[in-house]
Amino acid sequence: MNDLLEKVRWGNVRAIARVISLVENSKAAAQTAVSGLFPYTGQAHVVGITGPPGCGKSTLVNELAKQFVLEEQRVAIIAVDPSSPFSGGALLGDRARMMDLTGQQGIFIRSMASRGSLGGLARATSAAIKIFDAADYGIILVETVGAGQAEVDIANAAHTTLVVEAPGMGDDLQSIKAGILEIADVLVVNKSDRPGALRTVKALEMMLHMGQPDQTHHHGYLTKIEPATHADAQEKWQVEVLQTVAIEGKGLSELAQLVKAHRSYLMASGEWEEREKNRSRRELEQLLQDRFLARIQETVSEVEREHLVTAVTRREVDPYTAVDRLFTQIEKRSA
Amino acid sequence: MNDLLEKVRWGNVRAIARVISLVENSKAAAQTAVSGLFPYTGQAHVVGITGPPGCGKSTLVNELAKQFVLEEQRVAIIAVDPSSPFSGGALLGDRARMMDLTGQQGIFIRSMASRGSLGGLARATSAAIKIFDAADYGIILVETVGAGQAEVDIANAAHTTLVVEAPGMGDDLQSIKAGILEIADVLVVNKSDRPGALRTVKALEMMLHMGQPDQTHHHGYLTKIEPATHADAQEKWQVEVLQTVAIEGKGLSELAQLVKAHRSYLMASGEWEEREKNRSRRELEQLLQDRFLARIQETVSEVEREHLVTAVTRREVDPYTAVDRLFTQIEKRSA
Repeated sequence: MNDLLEKVRWGNVRAIARVISLVENSKAAAQTAVSGLFPYTGQAHVVGITGPPGCGKSTLVNELAKQFVLEEQRVAIIAVDPSSPFSGGALLGDRARMMDLTGQQGIFIRSMASRGSLGGLARATSAAIKIFDAADYGIILVETVGAGQAEVDIANAAHTTLVVEAPGMGDDLQSIKAGILEIADVLVVNKSDRPGALRTVKALEMMLHMGQPDQTHHHGYLTKIEPATHADAQEKWQVEVLQTVAIEGKGLSELAQLVKAHRSYLMASGEWEEREKNRSRRELEQLLQDRFLARIQETVSEVEREHLVTAVTRREVDPYTAVDRLFTQIEKRSA
Repeated sequence: MNDLLEKVRWGNVRAIARVISLVENSKAAAQTAVSGLFPYTGQAHVVGITGPPGCGKSTLVNELAKQFVLEEQRVAIIAVDPSSPFSGGALLGDRARMMDLTGQQGIFIRSMASRGSLGGLARATSAAIKIFDAADYGIILVETVGAGQAEVDIANAAHTTLVVEAPGMGDDLQSIKAGILEIADVLVVNKSDRPGALRTVKALEMMLHMGQPDQTHHHGYLTKIEPATHADAQEKWQVEVLQTVAIEGKGLSELAQLVKAHRSYLMASGEWEEREKNRSRRELEQLLQDRFLARIQETVSEVEREHLVTAVTRREVDPYTAVDRLFTQIEKRSA
């Protein structure tokens, strides 16, 4: 493994692919890789891209990557698919987009699907980000699909978050969720050659100017609510709505510029460090949960666990009392 | 509280609303309510409804509720919004749909938004289901938006899961996620008066007949992989694709029949009990996590936690080592 990690640091693409696979399949490998590479991380600009299915996100991400390559940057794309914990996910789609990038120097694309647990996916994605970071990829584009926790996780993992919509999708109130707008550093209306694009832009802009977000970003157990000190400074970041037609490359150069401008803003305002802290906090929370999970499996046998589940199902004991018992048991045996 | 719970059991709507509010705001209240009402639960048919924004889900749920009322059933609607942990969510939309149900006897609608943590929302939703169950609501419709973990959670909380799509939304591979199809007991193509409806139906049917799902539904720490014994029996449930135009009430009577047929199937096949067990398991997992979270907050001060976060951010210590330390500390102090 040490040999592999050395090669990762030298940017060897086969070593990178190999270590990511190891990390996906084993917690121990994730621990070794992250511990070993951690001192060499912290340089990459992590950009999260999220939006509903059908908004053309993958094409947009591919095109954005090409923009950065034009500027001699090395770009990693991590396509995270949290919505298919069951089977393989959008494999066909993956192949098409990889074809599109064939022969593109400097772009490394990797897709990661949930293999049963969202926690496992989060751990592997977070490790993959560090691997690319240590391998000196200056920009890491992390793409995810869907609404909900996935978006929030991406906002917590990224320095810059792009939220992508398409014309017609963002017009009803239901789909323009305040929560999604509030994680956005840049809003993109892709497929802007379609009818209704301008209406979507206007709707998003209206939403942007409605109401102030409250400061309760995330209540994890390591989370402190950060007062918006930097945000109060004279130059707060203004979220813009940008139109693109990714499939024709339109608006992509502007988008790349905005992403770079956001990085500069983060650095100048001190928010970069704040976001780094948030990323660390989230990661510690996830790892703590992993540890707790492992502890339960060590201390309470599957038979005992199933017995309790059955008792609750039969209404012999209520879930709170059951958990009290289980928790006491875990603590006794750990002591 | 005991007085309130007594009133809940008698179906007093004001008591129900009050207890749900208490449960949303305090863990202690959730514990008291669930423990007190638990022996009186287990009768309700919990139906999960999920689908992307814009598919007309809320109208469909309202109309489905009306169908059951026609059959003299009391129906509860819980509209869960996991996608807006930041601000208020789709309040305007809520008001419109509540207006629609004004004067409808026998339907109780309640919306629940995340107030910062997904864990809190899951706990409150699960408690609300029990409250309605104990208050003798025969059908509980739990509606959620978005793709990802929310769907999986709903499938775990429900006896029957409806996945709703709209024409044009489900045509590209990206949006018809295998994972979503595999949680569906019934697939609904709503807005079927729109162009392309039949194409969407065909696409979904094709997906349904492609590939067998593997059995790894969920890898929580209390989870056992259930072999599909009942599913192997002669009469496996056939997932159907049903067309509706909810806004005109079209197809709703058929949908209500299918939902009832699924309940009968679950009962006859023994799957009802299996799903009840899965629900209990999930709930125990969530409550265990809550307990663990509380234990961390008790044993490690915020200052200590922040110190560790800062050390990781500065790359002085890697996250795995940091978690090792934290975990040891928690166990020592708990002992």
